[in-house]
Amino acid sequence: MVLLPPENFNHVEQDWEPVSPFPAMASGRSFVSGNPEGNGLRVRYFKNKSSGNLLAKAWFGPETEGPPGFAHGGSMAALLDEVMGGMAWMSGHPVLAARLVNDFRQSLPLGTVVQAEGVIESINGRKVHTRGALRGMDGQVFCEGQGLFIILDEKQLDIFKKRFAERAK
Amino acid sequence: MVLLPPENFNHVEQDWEPVSPFPAMASGRSFVSGNPEGNGLRVRYFKNKSSGNLLAKAWFGPETEGPPGFAHGGSMAALLDEVMGGMAWMSGHPVLAARLVNDFRQSLPLGTVVQAEGVIESINGRKVHTRGALRGMDGQVFCEGQGLFIILDEKQLDIFKKRFAERAK
Repeated sequence: MVLLPPENFNHVEQDWEPVSPFPAMASGRSFVSGNPEGNGLRVRYFKNKSSGNLLAKAWFGPETEGPPGFAHGGSMAALLDEVMGGMAWMSGHPVLAARLVNDFRQSLPLGTVVQAEGVIESINGRKVHTRGALRGMDGQVFCEGQGLFIILDEKQLDIFKKRFAERAK
Repeated sequence: MVLLPPENFNHVEQDWEPVSPFPAMASGRSFVSGNPEGNGLRVRYFKNKSSGNLLAKAWFGPETEGPPGFAHGGSMAALLDEVMGGMAWMSGHPVLAARLVNDFRQSLPLGTVVQAEGVIESINGRKVHTRGALRGMDGQVFCEGQGLFIILDEKQLDIFKKRFAERAK
């Protein structure tokens, strides 16, 4: 049985522009955002035009469970990973995660709709330092993240392009 | 179409004893280990009797994708979270994650079978410090984790017990 997120999952602010932060998102298979009709994570991406940041509106369905009735820490960490990395991709920096840090502030009840925003803090050479936060619609912080991402060189990008082309056949 | 993990997913060493590290695992809905017949993460837990640690044998199926053809960093982070936390539960400490750190060493090709082991480093009061590593069958390290978990008090445990009882009805 497929459940439905609450009505507020569909609410979009005026300054949110729908985006696909990753070029390969068209493949639709991401661990985090690849199943927008399922009972796990449902994720919709927007560019927050007022802040310039990537914003994910997400619903934590019953298949994101960790402790009984609450979201798995790993599901929150995975969403923040994708939001922080996605912010780098959306900003023109093709990256891979090198280090992720997650601080859990509050247990997240299953069925909750949240907003997660990814922010670029600084770029030094190939290092992109990001942070992110996962908040309820009332602003309550459930999890905070820091992400160090590395900008891919041509050789690494070619490996992914090749894999993508092989798969699309 | 449900794919099959390679044959080595079924291999079990003599000193590995099958375990269910979490009391609520019976619910079978975990974000990480709740779908052992699907195309995402398939996880089998063992107690490694020679080290005393919790060991997960896992297959990263096509629905764990991040970059084309490779596992999502968030899927590795989620598995390490559960292995490190599971080690604390298996050792008699009911915990929740407070902070997780993940260092990504190598991209993990989809379809790979890995072993992840969770280790308790120290316990100070209610703080349980753990670490974990996700390795290929040849020992290659794909991701390392550190986890700070907090031992739940009676009040917090009661909330989870209540949620579990409500759901089991």
